[in-house]
Amino acid sequence: MNAFLQDARHVFKLDPAKFITDDDLEAVCESGTDAVIVGGTDHVTLDGVLDLLMRIRRYSVPCGLEISSMEAITPGFDAYLIPMVMNSRDKKWMMDIQHQAIKAYKDLINWNDMAVEGYCILNEDAKAFQYTNCDLPDHDDVVAYAYMAEHMFHLPIFYLEYSGMYGDEELVQEVREQLCHTQLVYGGGIASKAQAREMTKHADTIVVGNLIYLDIGEALQTVEAVNTENIARGGDKRASDNA
Amino acid sequence: MNAFLQDARHVFKLDPAKFITDDDLEAVCESGTDAVIVGGTDHVTLDGVLDLLMRIRRYSVPCGLEISSMEAITPGFDAYLIPMVMNSRDKKWMMDIQHQAIKAYKDLINWNDMAVEGYCILNEDAKAFQYTNCDLPDHDDVVAYAYMAEHMFHLPIFYLEYSGMYGDEELVQEVREQLCHTQLVYGGGIASKAQAREMTKHADTIVVGNLIYLDIGEALQTVEAVNTENIARGGDKRASDNA
Repeated sequence: MNAFLQDARHVFKLDPAKFITDDDLEAVCESGTDAVIVGGTDHVTLDGVLDLLMRIRRYSVPCGLEISSMEAITPGFDAYLIPMVMNSRDKKWMMDIQHQAIKAYKDLINWNDMAVEGYCILNEDAKAFQYTNCDLPDHDDVVAYAYMAEHMFHLPIFYLEYSGMYGDEELVQEVREQLCHTQLVYGGGIASKAQAREMTKHADTIVVGNLIYLDIGEALQTVEAVNTENIARGGDKRASDNA
Repeated sequence: MNAFLQDARHVFKLDPAKFITDDDLEAVCESGTDAVIVGGTDHVTLDGVLDLLMRIRRYSVPCGLEISSMEAITPGFDAYLIPMVMNSRDKKWMMDIQHQAIKAYKDLINWNDMAVEGYCILNEDAKAFQYTNCDLPDHDDVVAYAYMAEHMFHLPIFYLEYSGMYGDEELVQEVREQLCHTQLVYGGGIASKAQAREMTKHADTIVVGNLIYLDIGEALQTVEAVNTENIARGGDKRASDNA
């Protein structure tokens, strides 16, 4: 599996369908974040992905593509993240799309560049939730999904996606306690450095997305908040937790 | 993961819904087979499973339960095999039943006793195919499922199930070439020692089921056929193939 996110504590996610100025993009890439992910739900086009890739590549920050559309995949990223929506009602979003992609492109895939993300989408109002026909899981469902991600599927990443809504810290903490080898990524609704710091206590990695487009200044401050929290907790959170 | 099937080349599968005499059961258990699996599709009850377990436990052969019904699970087996039907149209048979089971029994599960089997059911007329609402995959689909079992899900076992119909040797061989860490189990329609020998050339493990009930004499001879073929191929097939 790809080590792209393995040691990342803070990640920015850029949406290829949204506009960002060169100055803001530079600030994001030079912010000290551990990685940048390119990914979105709606209107993701190859042109949009390529444009963002070329602009990000001016900087040295690691950059991965979260695959949402087969038509918008291009070489040139450090890693390719493959979402597998565990709480979708349809097998399609769990593995059938991935199956068709593997059937078509198996010989071109370098598995070392890939990382499968077991997604659990927890905001009913989110586009991604509706688009992938999700069921809203209760706490025990979510914990069981996390358990399956680690024990049944041996996935490198379990991704709690609140997509636009700040999540339930208690649940994130509970999920964290299930996972030993699988990395817990949290995304959704982080709107301040205080929230970034809070979620860093529970998740291995936090993703800041929308805030980039809503309040770039606050978004940039989440990087420092995460670093400070990590230092306060004695450096490598996972390593110390698992010791 | 459980090592129950890991070095098995020949396995007998006993159906708890079918009658077997004590003499035939003794012959099966003392045949020199590497393991016995208890499993079926229809009318699998706890009483049927317990009865078979107690009778098999008179002998030293390793014995696993392939879980088909939550109501028919009991302690006492050396291993528990969890099928995950990759070519079902429904997410239910792929992971939702398993998810509900994990949600309910997570704290009781010893993961060291478990092995997940990525199933691909290839006989349209089989009960299991219809019951789990499968789609008939073409050759490339099957190869892609095998690839996913190994690379995406890191499953210990990929199970080609022809259920009552002798399979396509060329396809089994093709699938075999995809797999490096995931073990290829073949089951279905083996009706003679010649067929057992033939499939042993391609699969890591062959499962003989129905033949026990149709022609116990021929069934018993498949054990020797597999052993002879393995010796002719220089012992451990996987080890030599992967060397």
